[in-house]
Amino acid sequence: MSQTSVDARIGYRGEEIVRDYISRYSNWGRWSDDDQLGALNLVGPEQVVAAAGLVRRGKVVSMTLPFDLRGPQVGGFRANPLNLMTATGTDYLSGAQDPLPGNWGPARGFGYADDVIVMPNQAGTQWDALCHIFFEGKMFNGHDAGLVTAGGAARCGVEVVRERLVMRGVLLDVARARGVDALEPGYAITAADLDAAAAAEKVEVRTGDCVVVRTGMLGQRRGKWGDYCGGPAPGMSLHTAPWLAEHQVAAVATDTWGAEVRPNEIELFQPFHVVVLVHMGVLVGEIWDLEAIAADCAGDGVYEFMLSAAPLPITGAAGAPVNALAIK
Amino acid sequence: MSQTSVDARIGYRGEEIVRDYISRYSNWGRWSDDDQLGALNLVGPEQVVAAAGLVRRGKVVSMTLPFDLRGPQVGGFRANPLNLMTATGTDYLSGAQDPLPGNWGPARGFGYADDVIVMPNQAGTQWDALCHIFFEGKMFNGHDAGLVTAGGAARCGVEVVRERLVMRGVLLDVARARGVDALEPGYAITAADLDAAAAAEKVEVRTGDCVVVRTGMLGQRRGKWGDYCGGPAPGMSLHTAPWLAEHQVAAVATDTWGAEVRPNEIELFQPFHVVVLVHMGVLVGEIWDLEAIAADCAGDGVYEFMLSAAPLPITGAAGAPVNALAIK
Amino acid sequence: MSQTSVDARIGYRGEEIVRDYISRYSNWGRWSDDDQLGALNLVGPEQVVAAAGLVRRGKVVSMTLPFDLRGPQVGGFRANPLNLMTATGTDYLSGAQDPLPGNWGPARGFGYADDVIVMPNQAGTQWDALCHIFFEGKMFNGHDAGLVTAGGAARCGVEVVRERLVMRGVLLDVARARGVDALEPGYAITAADLDAAAAAEKVEVRTGDCVVVRTGMLGQRRGKWGDYCGGPAPGMSLHTAPWLAEHQVAAVATDTWGAEVRPNEIELFQPFHVVVLVHMGVLVGEIWDLEAIAADCAGDGVYEFMLSAAPLPITGAAGAPVNALAIK
Amino acid sequence: MSQTSVDARIGYRGEEIVRDYISRYSNWGRWSDDDQLGALNLVGPEQVVAAAGLVRRGKVVSMTLPFDLRGPQVGGFRANPLNLMTATGTDYLSGAQDPLPGNWGPARGFGYADDVIVMPNQAGTQWDALCHIFFEGKMFNGHDAGLVTAGGAARCGVEVVRERLVMRGVLLDVARARGVDALEPGYAITAADLDAAAAAEKVEVRTGDCVVVRTGMLGQRRGKWGDYCGGPAPGMSLHTAPWLAEHQVAAVATDTWGAEVRPNEIELFQPFHVVVLVHMGVLVGEIWDLEAIAADCAGDGVYEFMLSAAPLPITGAAGAPVNALAIK
Repeated sequence: MSQTSVDARIGYRGEEIVRDYISRYSNWGRWSDDDQLGALNLVGPEQVVAAAGLVRRGKVVSMTLPFDLRGPQVGGFRANPLNLMTATGTDYLSGAQDPLPGNWGPARGFGYADDVIVMPNQAGTQWDALCHIFFEGKMFNGHDAGLVTAGGAARCGVEVVRERLVMRGVLLDVARARGVDALEPGYAITAADLDAAAAAEKVEVRTGDCVVVRTGMLGQRRGKWGDYCGGPAPGMSLHTAPWLAEHQVAAVATDTWGAEVRPNEIELFQPFHVVVLVHMGVLVGEIWDLEAIAADCAGDGVYEFMLSAAPLPITGAAGAPVNALAIK
Repeated sequence: MSQTSVDARIGYRGEEIVRDYISRYSNWGRWSDDDQLGALNLVGPEQVVAAAGLVRRGKVVSMTLPFDLRGPQVGGFRANPLNLMTATGTDYLSGAQDPLPGNWGPARGFGYADDVIVMPNQAGTQWDALCHIFFEGKMFNGHDAGLVTAGGAARCGVEVVRERLVMRGVLLDVARARGVDALEPGYAITAADLDAAAAAEKVEVRTGDCVVVRTGMLGQRRGKWGDYCGGPAPGMSLHTAPWLAEHQVAAVATDTWGAEVRPNEIELFQPFHVVVLVHMGVLVGEIWDLEAIAADCAGDGVYEFMLSAAPLPITGAAGAPVNALAIK
Repeated sequence: MSQTSVDARIGYRGEEIVRDYISRYSNWGRWSDDDQLGALNLVGPEQVVAAAGLVRRGKVVSMTLPFDLRGPQVGGFRANPLNLMTATGTDYLSGAQDPLPGNWGPARGFGYADDVIVMPNQAGTQWDALCHIFFEGKMFNGHDAGLVTAGGAARCGVEVVRERLVMRGVLLDVARARGVDALEPGYAITAADLDAAAAAEKVEVRTGDCVVVRTGMLGQRRGKWGDYCGGPAPGMSLHTAPWLAEHQVAAVATDTWGAEVRPNEIELFQPFHVVVLVHMGVLVGEIWDLEAIAADCAGDGVYEFMLSAAPLPITGAAGAPVNALAIK
Repeated sequence: MSQTSVDARIGYRGEEIVRDYISRYSNWGRWSDDDQLGALNLVGPEQVVAAAGLVRRGKVVSMTLPFDLRGPQVGGFRANPLNLMTATGTDYLSGAQDPLPGNWGPARGFGYADDVIVMPNQAGTQWDALCHIFFEGKMFNGHDAGLVTAGGAARCGVEVVRERLVMRGVLLDVARARGVDALEPGYAITAADLDAAAAAEKVEVRTGDCVVVRTGMLGQRRGKWGDYCGGPAPGMSLHTAPWLAEHQVAAVATDTWGAEVRPNEIELFQPFHVVVLVHMGVLVGEIWDLEAIAADCAGDGVYEFMLSAAPLPITGAAGAPVNALAIK
């Protein structure tokens, strides 16, 4: 078995900058040699209490697309969620549930519905786990990629964050700050864009925050998805990595398929993930539906909120769907 | 197609009490004729803000079992969650991901893991949606059972509560209050038990709360599930319905498969669901793992918390898995 | 629950012809009141022996598309088959299978691969079961449509034919007989077309045959499926029903998504299915890959063969995938 | 990544015999360096024609268990098939299919049922593909185990035999020959047992045959499966490998979970598979339901038949379900 593919140190355009960012911003070993939480270590009790303090209006806004066949996965890498009914009201009304199954006796008017979901974990609104991406043989913190087998991830599976991701969220509405409905595909969001949005919103980014970046793309493509998944898209520039490191950001989420700008800025595929997720240990949220929260924030002028976005703890999974809530 | 099964007004032991509770506590039409939220209407902005005010220590405790093949669904009505890897670290290390799929070019050290989940929505820690149970042809608020087809629920699907279930949670640790590790199968928790637990915990139940009732059964059966799903179990007595109505409770969750005592107290199957879920519109949470939160509450003596437990919004589903968080 | 939809006797263009064909060719009650096999009753031991007598060259040709993500179900009503690996060679080589699971001890060089298939039963090459289509409240032989619940079909599920569909097959290569690579979408194959193809091929259709009709469409669309599933297509005219009845045909299969011409010739959706499958009890095979068998038959001039095409016996299923073999 | 697990040449009880059988009976390179068919190469046109010649009574007997939740996979390594309805007759009768989906207009009495199957490929009656088992880093013919990734098998996937497995089948009813309903768990079927059964049945095994060996276990356990899957079982002795080689057998199938005796006779797990499947390239069929064919053969005294048992051609799969037919 050749190791060349994973060690490939042959040159490619942009390799130096990736190596430079990694050398400067890597969090491997920062918390412990066996750490699996990465930048979520930046969210301590103090940050959780402060996040709860942001709840002033009692308004809850979900940033999650419905999970169903109308989702964005049209003919691509993954499929849309398929919910399959194993018991229905029409069956019940027809008498087919009487007697009840399982030796439960006569129905006496009782009936039920039940169902099974089949879905790629990253089909819709989701978090990439820290085991989702590998680089040069490793996942975050130097855990070996070989720990992710057909049986799942023995390290950095999504279940390790099941009590995390309750934190302060800051919406940086870059589309709005730039005065457009949606950024163009291929538009790389810069650190300056992030600063400008924060300034316009009169919000500051703090240690342990989740930065939620709106490009407007999801709203624009809703229901006519086309190449939303995998095609050209606006998104985070690789060069926002230093900004994220300096602000000690704990998580990043966007309203696009892949969070970072597509096509990529250098010859490496998804280099933002390589630096930010694999080396800085920052969780990346994708396909978040930010239209409602953007409207709400524009309405009250408050771009910070309590974020409650712990994913479904699927053991060993490379990512998981989440109902991400902004609570204001 | 006969209607007799769903209209069956033939007598059965306990029928009068069911009809009496329904006539006294039904919330059908209380909020609106087309309402699909039921008792969650009791949770307004004021309750959300108050819930956030309970966050004092910055501690997050998940009340959700991991979703995997070691779950409680052993050979019964439903199956355990099956997570299937579509891309692995071992493949990546073997060079099988180089070149990348989808015209993404040479890997240059990049790799990924990905997966698909197959699971009954109610396999593990979950909420019953208000379309999960029917009685005499109807679901909550008189919505016709026939609205739940193989295509899913057109009313009261679990997605309608995607911005709800952020609220005050109160743990009533009945097992602890009664001085046992776990209540016995068949033990029916009474209103007096709930009051005694609240008194021992020095906590009061308020309008719009989620009452989280610990029997201890899940902790006792973990990993040796046996007939945990569907067999005899401790749980809510049908006769706690008046108590829930009087306290204006918005949701109830327990650490058992079916929330209510099994075998049932009367001849009707799951009569607590019929009264509380179908007629009062109170969401019912099941298979919640309350061991950690019980230990935490016993430790600090505080049995109230901010609950963040919005389910995965699977369109038209009869229930959904949830990562239920107690935030203290 | 309204019955109007299923009894709808309001006029539509073509209604009379449907009713006429049904009245003249229905096989309801022909074999027995509870019969679930329909026209397959025409295949007796004599026909099976005769079919085996057609095996002269010892050549086996599969008429089944591979079941995988490259299949024809692109973004439509159904999805392509998804095969998910639960154990891989790369895992094995990495040492991840040592020790073996299940208390099976040290691997000592042993390893394995394993997988799970998720697929609509009619995603690829398949048979429609006689419970697949309903008309005016009934499936074949008057069995009530209500017998097909979320628990599956209690009558006419695909498993009832698990020992059938070994029979004489006759390829009627209508595309070839008409001198085209593929018939045009919308082309309705007539009885005259069937007769012309049979004459050109010097083959006769006999009682209990499976008539396999090639339009050429699958070969033309392979790998660039477009609207192959559900869009305009050549196919059997409704008006071939009398021909099929007169020839006592037991099954029909084609290389299109829906067997019959699309758009339909009258205002009723899929009227050929209504007459031929629901009323005559003739099984309909769809998405058969007839390119290889057509080439073989053109090569040796023999258009008859032993057909072995019993579907996977999935209990209560409305159809099932099949590896349909022509044995010559 | 350590290679020790797959190269492990440390001694274990029985290692010499495995190495001896491999050295004497291996078919690696026998047909070609890239061959993926193994012993099925022994089935040429002559054998297919001869097999068809065995069809005398026109009787078709399926040797396949129904695929449903009542199958043998109770709580073990794999799960039973789950068929999920996406359209039902009860929905149809309720009017929920009117209008039809997909712009197909008013139903006018038309309706349909549809479904999705979720199943481990080896949940029930199945063939192991030649990529199912690895030994010392390789599958059959020296193909590298690393060719089986999360994307499936690039060599020896089950689809390569989609036009094979039409051949002569010989039922060796060892249980009957030994005068028992079922052989005891742990009973190792010897070459002498196979010869005795053949002699009692007055049948001879020929080049290219599929030997179908009945232990009686499936009939005994049907519906009360217990540890049928993976537990102690009667089955082929490792020491039948020479017999199979000498008789030039092309495939073997039994009515047990794993074909070979359990517990294994030596310290290597499933050594019969290692010798017979990996090195001799003989396909192994498992969980075949042989009760009906055994009764039929006992009835007419004829233990040979035309076997038609090509599996579902799932691309890259490690095995596949099959409707295996004996045609007499």
